[in-house]
Amino acid sequence: MARWEPNARLRLVQAAIDLFGEQGYDNTTVSQLAERAGLTKTTFFRHFPDKREVLFAGQEEHARLLTAGVASAPATATPLEAVAAGLDALTSSFTPEQREFGPRLRSVVAGHAELRERSAFKELALAAALTDALHQRGVPDPIACLAADLGVRAFHTAFTEWIAPANDQPLPALAQHRLTELHRAATALS
Amino acid sequence: MARWEPNARLRLVQAAIDLFGEQGYDNTTVSQLAERAGLTKTTFFRHFPDKREVLFAGQEEHARLLTAGVASAPATATPLEAVAAGLDALTSSFTPEQREFGPRLRSVVAGHAELRERSAFKELALAAALTDALHQRGVPDPIACLAADLGVRAFHTAFTEWIAPANDQPLPALAQHRLTELHRAATALS
Repeated sequence: MARWEPNARLRLVQAAIDLFGEQGYDNTTVSQLAERAGLTKTTFFRHFPDKREVLFAGQEEHARLLTAGVASAPATATPLEAVAAGLDALTSSFTPEQREFGPRLRSVVAGHAELRERSAFKELALAAALTDALHQRGVPDPIACLAADLGVRAFHTAFTEWIAPANDQPLPALAQHRLTELHRAATALS
Repeated sequence: MARWEPNARLRLVQAAIDLFGEQGYDNTTVSQLAERAGLTKTTFFRHFPDKREVLFAGQEEHARLLTAGVASAPATATPLEAVAAGLDALTSSFTPEQREFGPRLRSVVAGHAELRERSAFKELALAAALTDALHQRGVPDPIACLAADLGVRAFHTAFTEWIAPANDQPLPALAQHRLTELHRAATALS
């Protein structure tokens, strides 16, 4: 099975979103996913441990991008400027395909308790990765936790706006706008 | 099966924490949980849909307490003062039993991916309930979301401190302290 499978991961993600939407998450098997993607089951398992994880394909890569972005911010950056750099690195990686299947992905996840829980875990995992990256820069708690929470919330809100049909703004700009708005809200709490 | 079962819920929670800790979550059945608690399987299913939910017994009650606390704050309260009232209502409900089994509960949840995901979902559900309660008071987003995030984070950190062996502070005081500290951190972001 050493043949070249261009975009196998993306094809599996698209097949999953299609099939889960058409026939339900519970009724879809790994074999069906592989077949729809034009791949073998063996190839499937080279990329994902099970059908659920296909929907959360991005978690590790997203954490890596956020962390690398935070690390790349200048030494003089404030915690929130470092988070902004992390968000930039993450949001710049999103593709038109991800925007296209975003609403269907959201609706599959929303329709199934197990997927909603997995999704909540992804959000906490991203916040933890961002917090760690801030600790690496010497930012202490609770400022690191707080700045990370703002970053994840900004990402989440911006992603929802980005996939809306009427939107014409790029994801990075939406995320920076939301982060600025949350920063202002944090100040307004006083 | 209409006999009186004093503290059936609490007995099931304690049985679950004991058995999951002794023999593992996967190896424990509902029948074993019921037996350890001195109850029948029928009684178990009157209280919980499955063995997993025993560990998250408090979610709805916690959301209800938070929400009622927020609603009870004076009309002049700031969003964060309303969150503080919610935290007071929630944290005052915790018992010495919950403190006693807290560390074992945490360790069972930490040891199992499915339970970590369910726990992350509980945290997001509490934040959503708190956000809704603030919306009811006319607090707009993103201030409502932000204040709710601070509240849930303060609760989580305070709970960790409260169950530490050396702690001698009550949970409500720890939670208010953490909320104040997060509020200061929010101001310091500017």
